[in-house]
Amino acid sequence: MKVIIVGGVAGGASCAARLRRLDEKAEILMVERGPYVSYANCGLPYHIGGSIENESSLLVATEQMFRVMFNVDCRTNCEVVGINSKQKTVELKNHLTGTISTEKYDKLLLSPGAAPVRPPLKGIDLPGIFSVRTVPDARKIREWLDRDNDHSVGNPFTGNDTVSKPKQAVVIGGGFIGLEMVENLIERGLEVTLIEKLNQVMPPLDHEMAILVERYLTKHGAKVELSDGVAGFRKPENHALEVLTDSGKVHLADIVIMAIGVRPETELAKMAGIEIGKLGGIRVDEHMRTSDPDIFAVGDAVEVKNFVTGEWALIPLAGPANRQGRIVADVIAGRDSKFRGTQGTSICKLFDAAIAQTGVSEKQLIGLGDKDYEKIYIYPNSHAGYYPGTKMLVIKLLFRKSNGLVLGAQVLGEDGVPKRIDSFAMAIQMGCTIYDLEEAELCYAPPFGSGKDPVNFAGMVAANILRGDMPVCHWDSADKGFLLDVRNPQEIAVESVPGAVNIPLPELRKRLGELPRDREILIICRSAVRAYFATRILMQNGFKARNISGGMLARSHSGTN
Amino acid sequence: MKVIIVGGVAGGASCAARLRRLDEKAEILMVERGPYVSYANCGLPYHIGGSIENESSLLVATEQMFRVMFNVDCRTNCEVVGINSKQKTVELKNHLTGTISTEKYDKLLLSPGAAPVRPPLKGIDLPGIFSVRTVPDARKIREWLDRDNDHSVGNPFTGNDTVSKPKQAVVIGGGFIGLEMVENLIERGLEVTLIEKLNQVMPPLDHEMAILVERYLTKHGAKVELSDGVAGFRKPENHALEVLTDSGKVHLADIVIMAIGVRPETELAKMAGIEIGKLGGIRVDEHMRTSDPDIFAVGDAVEVKNFVTGEWALIPLAGPANRQGRIVADVIAGRDSKFRGTQGTSICKLFDAAIAQTGVSEKQLIGLGDKDYEKIYIYPNSHAGYYPGTKMLVIKLLFRKSNGLVLGAQVLGEDGVPKRIDSFAMAIQMGCTIYDLEEAELCYAPPFGSGKDPVNFAGMVAANILRGDMPVCHWDSADKGFLLDVRNPQEIAVESVPGAVNIPLPELRKRLGELPRDREILIICRSAVRAYFATRILMQNGFKARNISGGMLARSHSGTN
Repeated sequence: MKVIIVGGVAGGASCAARLRRLDEKAEILMVERGPYVSYANCGLPYHIGGSIENESSLLVATEQMFRVMFNVDCRTNCEVVGINSKQKTVELKNHLTGTISTEKYDKLLLSPGAAPVRPPLKGIDLPGIFSVRTVPDARKIREWLDRDNDHSVGNPFTGNDTVSKPKQAVVIGGGFIGLEMVENLIERGLEVTLIEKLNQVMPPLDHEMAILVERYLTKHGAKVELSDGVAGFRKPENHALEVLTDSGKVHLADIVIMAIGVRPETELAKMAGIEIGKLGGIRVDEHMRTSDPDIFAVGDAVEVKNFVTGEWALIPLAGPANRQGRIVADVIAGRDSKFRGTQGTSICKLFDAAIAQTGVSEKQLIGLGDKDYEKIYIYPNSHAGYYPGTKMLVIKLLFRKSNGLVLGAQVLGEDGVPKRIDSFAMAIQMGCTIYDLEEAELCYAPPFGSGKDPVNFAGMVAANILRGDMPVCHWDSADKGFLLDVRNPQEIAVESVPGAVNIPLPELRKRLGELPRDREILIICRSAVRAYFATRILMQNGFKARNISGGMLARSHSGTN
Repeated sequence: MKVIIVGGVAGGASCAARLRRLDEKAEILMVERGPYVSYANCGLPYHIGGSIENESSLLVATEQMFRVMFNVDCRTNCEVVGINSKQKTVELKNHLTGTISTEKYDKLLLSPGAAPVRPPLKGIDLPGIFSVRTVPDARKIREWLDRDNDHSVGNPFTGNDTVSKPKQAVVIGGGFIGLEMVENLIERGLEVTLIEKLNQVMPPLDHEMAILVERYLTKHGAKVELSDGVAGFRKPENHALEVLTDSGKVHLADIVIMAIGVRPETELAKMAGIEIGKLGGIRVDEHMRTSDPDIFAVGDAVEVKNFVTGEWALIPLAGPANRQGRIVADVIAGRDSKFRGTQGTSICKLFDAAIAQTGVSEKQLIGLGDKDYEKIYIYPNSHAGYYPGTKMLVIKLLFRKSNGLVLGAQVLGEDGVPKRIDSFAMAIQMGCTIYDLEEAELCYAPPFGSGKDPVNFAGMVAANILRGDMPVCHWDSADKGFLLDVRNPQEIAVESVPGAVNIPLPELRKRLGELPRDREILIICRSAVRAYFATRILMQNGFKARNISGGMLARSHSGTN
């Protein structure tokens, strides 16, 4: 049995190591066209930023290690330049020697990853424009950031010493890598402009959640330009790069980072004549087998099933890639392992904050025409409010209206985000309902949580809705009722909602006569807790009442104010 | 409908607030014998230590708030001194006025909590010996710590100024409150001795996990005295308190904290003639109803079912208490809410570390005579090893041998503990198997996790055992086979296992001839990863092999070295 693995990073390397453990006799050849296998591409932005100082730290396993520990014939700088799936051969080119050789396989695994999208814009090949995918990419960016800039030489208004290094950066694309690069370039002291074609950063998030991320970026010194695409690049002599946008703007840049997304590498798949899905990724079954029964594919190059929606998706994440690699090893070794699909759990550090999501977003549900869902916004403390260091979490939870199934969660904050997103992730994996979240027994001590954890709280608020105890509405429909604000006058003096009548909660029971019985009363407070109490008082007194989910805190990023 | 709630902290306060939301008309009387309702008793050690500076921070909700927001007749300094369950009346004593009054109830909730155990030892009432349960307790301790000590006055060897404040503390009892007090007293600059009657601290942990906590305490300056009980106290004139132990030792102390556990407050229950369980807590059904259908009980005073074992247990934790309070409100309001039992999820901060557990421990399983379980020890990084700040986690996972069901987890470490224990907690709640853990999709970015999260890793290691891919043994039976150490000679030079033969993993395939075919080969490495690889190589070459779970890292706290 000879197995050839193309691509020696996450999925490929996982497969090689596991296959050896399952089959001591198999002949395993792993080829990687780059100079390194099993490197930490997720760490590249931090190496560029300097918090990971040494390039060598990024090399998780070496070619040598694969040879010695796993008895894997591991070849770097070795690219597959041809596949003959009938003959079951691949043509390999050794980039150091130029030699081309042919190898037979019994089973072939394609783990080529995804390439940064690099549109054919005018000037895209100018020096100073980079993508962030490989260790050599990161090295080039570091060298560029450390070098003197030609254009500042001879500038009569500035000294050569302090301004000769790049000081202005443009990052194009506001996804994970884009945001990580914004942070890391700011950490290095650059002025950073982020340009994003969409009307929001961080596409997995819903728009109103992304608004908070955009504010956070701005607060940390980034300039954020949304809804504007890049039209091209120019490099006048003795001058910085110019980034030209669709709207006609010109942004100066000593360095440009292209981070507008990745595209599955499917050239090899096309050579092999295997099926490509509608999203442009390699089509595989639950065993990660392609349309050719002897060829498997894993990682960023394949389309996977979204575990929650059942739809095909491109989800370029390390965790699923590793698992898929293991599954292919199992299947090749004769086991019946299956990939259960992915739920898109992800997290991104941004300065002191974390931005995380799991399951589906509201826009995905809307895109699917799925109306059987409800959502809530809550703003709990990350841990007991009386213990130092607590921060406000922002949580959006999506769940089935008909049965309470948890569909998705988005969590932002400066403390305690991983604890909560992983609870939601495990909940979604196991088919939890919001009623299960109410009863979740999560760890609590004042430095880490609350007796009623934010995850419980989310479950309780959602269950209040489904049990009919608390009808809700959202800010986009808050113009359709009688607005009652139950906050204190001092709070309203700071910020009020036009047209809302104020009756502070403590006075509500005595002032019910002031409220209309023929209209739906939409209730406002800061975070929708007091408004919940008020909703209960009104409902039990025969009024039609709804709590506006998330209160003023939700309004602040609802886009409706 | 008149409801009287006895005890206004976690469970009682939760019930009052929820009952009002469910029933605007109910007459609710909540009495609390202490001066505060709804205070944060979990925060008391940190208030004593000083990280929570103001006492007022601990008051989550006030008597006034219950009156105004919830229309609850809330009375502090008011104690129930009699219950007549036939007449359905309680006798209340107002501690400020001395007045006694009688109130009728339709439903009664007992939420009296648990009292610190205070054995009738000689000298137990000497000044300077404290328990930590209420805000006044904390205030007294703070005052004592801030005061001048009589005994140091006139000491000819020391100045009065610097040594007049307490500088030596003895904490008795190594559970949650004991450990939190050790930390907080050390933070205040005291020398602290911890005395524990058992042979380990932190009783929910298994012994070998507690060893790590004991070392950590010692590393942070605490003196830890295990397997020694307190026999009594003495206070010679002009001298510190003396704490006398069963073994005959004498520990000097300017302050003593008694933290040897709590006992359910069942006096009221006895007055009411309701059933008490075998563990000494009030017996309730899943609706939190006592043997009297009109009397409910919640919180630290009741026995609850352990969700995993089905056994009765005393689990004095805030989270379950809050949930029970809500359930009683639901039931009184005519709803069918049930308490699902508790799985004992808990966490304790200790200096920079966290100590957490959920589900059952091995000693609980042993106590139940349950042999259908296996365990593993793993030592993964808290997040990607190449990203700064990663720390080693210690994880013990218990699971059913017959079906892979996750039974319990214990997690220790200085980073990332809450993320993992909550994943395990949610897993146990939802009846996850270790195969589900393998496939869990948890959040990953270098600052927060790994592509293969420690939770996945735990699942994989466990699944390797149950699938028969990796037989394991533990250090307590490591004398029953041929010991093979596959580490490098440099590692072995630092620490070796007597009698073990060394063949470094990279040489193993070539040196199989040196190994016996008639004996079971028990394989050692640092953390059991290389030993796993070696196990696979040997098994596939026809040897009988076992990995010693957790490797040298497990040996270091196995108690066998």
